[in-house]
Amino acid sequence: MTAVQRNAPIDPVKLDRLAEVAIKVGLQLRPGQDLLVTAPSVALPLVRRIAEHAYKAGAGIVTPFLADEAITLSRYRHGHDASFDRAANWLYEGMAKAFSANTARLAIVGDNPMLLSGEDPVKVARASKANSIAYQPALEKIVNFDTNWNIIAYPSPSWAKQVFPDVPEDVAVAKLADAIFAASRVDQDGAVAAWEKHNAVLRERTEWLNGQRFQALKYSGPGTDLTIGLADGHEWEGGASTAKNGITCNANIPTEEVFTTPHCRRVSGHVVSSKPLSYQGTLIDNIQVKFEEGRIVEARASRGEEVLKKVLDTDEGAARLGEVALVPHSSPISKSGLLFFNTLFDENAASHIALGQCYSKCFVNGDKLTPEQIAAQGGNKSLIHIDWMIGTAETDIDGVHADGRRVPVMRKGEWA
Amino acid sequence: MTAVQRNAPIDPVKLDRLAEVAIKVGLQLRPGQDLLVTAPSVALPLVRRIAEHAYKAGAGIVTPFLADEAITLSRYRHGHDASFDRAANWLYEGMAKAFSANTARLAIVGDNPMLLSGEDPVKVARASKANSIAYQPALEKIVNFDTNWNIIAYPSPSWAKQVFPDVPEDVAVAKLADAIFAASRVDQDGAVAAWEKHNAVLRERTEWLNGQRFQALKYSGPGTDLTIGLADGHEWEGGASTAKNGITCNANIPTEEVFTTPHCRRVSGHVVSSKPLSYQGTLIDNIQVKFEEGRIVEARASRGEEVLKKVLDTDEGAARLGEVALVPHSSPISKSGLLFFNTLFDENAASHIALGQCYSKCFVNGDKLTPEQIAAQGGNKSLIHIDWMIGTAETDIDGVHADGRRVPVMRKGEWA
Ligand SMILES: [Zn+2]
Ligand SMILES: [Zn+2]
Ligand SMILES: [Zn+2]
Ligand SMILES: [Zn+2]
Repeated sequence: MTAVQRNAPIDPVKLDRLAEVAIKVGLQLRPGQDLLVTAPSVALPLVRRIAEHAYKAGAGIVTPFLADEAITLSRYRHGHDASFDRAANWLYEGMAKAFSANTARLAIVGDNPMLLSGEDPVKVARASKANSIAYQPALEKIVNFDTNWNIIAYPSPSWAKQVFPDVPEDVAVAKLADAIFAASRVDQDGAVAAWEKHNAVLRERTEWLNGQRFQALKYSGPGTDLTIGLADGHEWEGGASTAKNGITCNANIPTEEVFTTPHCRRVSGHVVSSKPLSYQGTLIDNIQVKFEEGRIVEARASRGEEVLKKVLDTDEGAARLGEVALVPHSSPISKSGLLFFNTLFDENAASHIALGQCYSKCFVNGDKLTPEQIAAQGGNKSLIHIDWMIGTAETDIDGVHADGRRVPVMRKGEWA
Repeated sequence: MTAVQRNAPIDPVKLDRLAEVAIKVGLQLRPGQDLLVTAPSVALPLVRRIAEHAYKAGAGIVTPFLADEAITLSRYRHGHDASFDRAANWLYEGMAKAFSANTARLAIVGDNPMLLSGEDPVKVARASKANSIAYQPALEKIVNFDTNWNIIAYPSPSWAKQVFPDVPEDVAVAKLADAIFAASRVDQDGAVAAWEKHNAVLRERTEWLNGQRFQALKYSGPGTDLTIGLADGHEWEGGASTAKNGITCNANIPTEEVFTTPHCRRVSGHVVSSKPLSYQGTLIDNIQVKFEEGRIVEARASRGEEVLKKVLDTDEGAARLGEVALVPHSSPISKSGLLFFNTLFDENAASHIALGQCYSKCFVNGDKLTPEQIAAQGGNKSLIHIDWMIGTAETDIDGVHADGRRVPVMRKGEWA
């Protein structure tokens, strides 16, 4: 018997390869390690592939946790007012406990970036705050690399329709799947080897930058004349990095950036954004800001300016930088020409900076520094961490040494 | 535009009614209460309806936890040996914490009852034991009714194919859906009112039985001549019951039984099973046992006898009774003529007894008794609790008073 079947829009071979890369490269999961997987419910086919590769690698217990967009919306549509200040504390506490007990963490992203754009922004902000507070202890263990972790993406239909609004849903899913597979280097055989090679390239960049020990980076380009001081004892990171449990992981798949911690009191000048920023259902476009002594003192945007200003007001550190990252204009994600509305991809399309919290990992011996030492060395502290793109095909970047000597780092958006 | 669509096998109106009954009757969820929902991943359509009714009822946070059969099988097929002694302790501890913090609990059953029948029974037993140990603190809070809880069923395809092996899958799902909806009293309008009426009928039965204060029940029928002593201070339960948090819930939907605690040292005689028992992928059929002083001293089965004997050997209490339940032979589930391979349904098709752990709730002031007092009054203790059917259309049951006076309770399987 035979039946006419619509072609599945997501290539099962590449999907399986993505799962394999997540376990072998992203996490380098060790025999006996438990694994917590969070994912949108539609990503179940990928979660199943992940579980199989995890068990083959000797996983203890794989615990999948599926969130569902319809259930999230149900809360906004039908929930009583008091619901929006609540969070599942028992669950987040449990996660923190799991990470302390050497459980690895895999997050599959793929939610509709505009899911909450039609909901009451006050409720969205309240729910987000309640969640942030409850999640904080678990998140700290991730950000500080207590355990090995990894983020990958699944081409959910609702996300695909945002990236490709003009084509039917299954075509959009197929296109987004292809873009994810290409960016994640699983579009051809030998994906694990391709990642080793890519990690080596990124390591070469970070080693060169760490050897230079620049005091500042100087950006110039259309609308941009910016000096970003680097934190004392900063360290450049990129690609693979070793968690405190001794396991080397690739926290982001894809990743094209090398990044470090700017000095949060030594940034000055003007900069304009080179791509729109998608933030909690709002597009913020054509950002223009002026820094003085590390702080944004003027901010404008052609779209979403109010949301931007609210973000900058979150706390004292929200108007200062916590990350500076270099990405060549020719990066594969940049070349795709797509806006993904998702930081995992968009931050790898251009050199960028991030408002808010810095990474302690981006300091020499960062895991031994106290919060006070990090602050003294120029590390920023905030509840937020928002990456936004400033690199273009016209961007020149110089490294500035303590004696004022300047070394070309990037020319016309490419490594010099 | 129009398109030929296959009719959905599960009626969405009745599915929504089942969700409404679960929230309003099963849980009587209170405004501000959080809700933990566990379900097979295929039951997501029902979980979504549940979440909506929960939020409309004022739920705090609804946390769905979806398990997936393919991921479970993946562990057995690919997991290293050490995996089978592990459990997600952090998650079960979190659940116990949630129940202590007044979170309500909804379990949706619907897994393939034969899922693990092809897997290594030793691994199945190891994994099951590891899970039982990890889940114990949370389970105790459920069994002791610390919070309001409820179990309902979803017609999963893999389960439907077990119940209706001879029809195509979507027909099987439609048939199982209809059977679940009818048994759960959501096949017509006014389901909430129908449950109030049904609860009143069950309450009338328990009040009569509690007024009689029988010392024992005497069963006779083909192959059966059994005396079941009742525990000192036993209390009959059935339908709605009030949890320690003050909320009246219907823990099982459907439910047709009234039940209490037998005296675990005062059961004697012979009894045969009237329906096959489905236990962890094995069918145990035509059970014949002999009790002496509460303990099973002889046990046979035409099928699955080895599994039965292993079960009876689990611990000291596994060969003694922890529950005795009365269900008329004319119960709607009995009339359906179906074997569901699921206790939630099958135990409501006939009068039954359960091996193993008793319910503290089935004692007068049970929530104030210590485990030692419960044991002294005749309550049984075991890691297992397995219901099996003994009622038939020929079964007569008498209540026996302390003075030997006998009162007809059931005649030919119906209330006398
Ligand atoms: Zn970055
Ligand atoms: Zn960043
Ligand atoms: Zn029962
Ligand atoms: Zn029972």
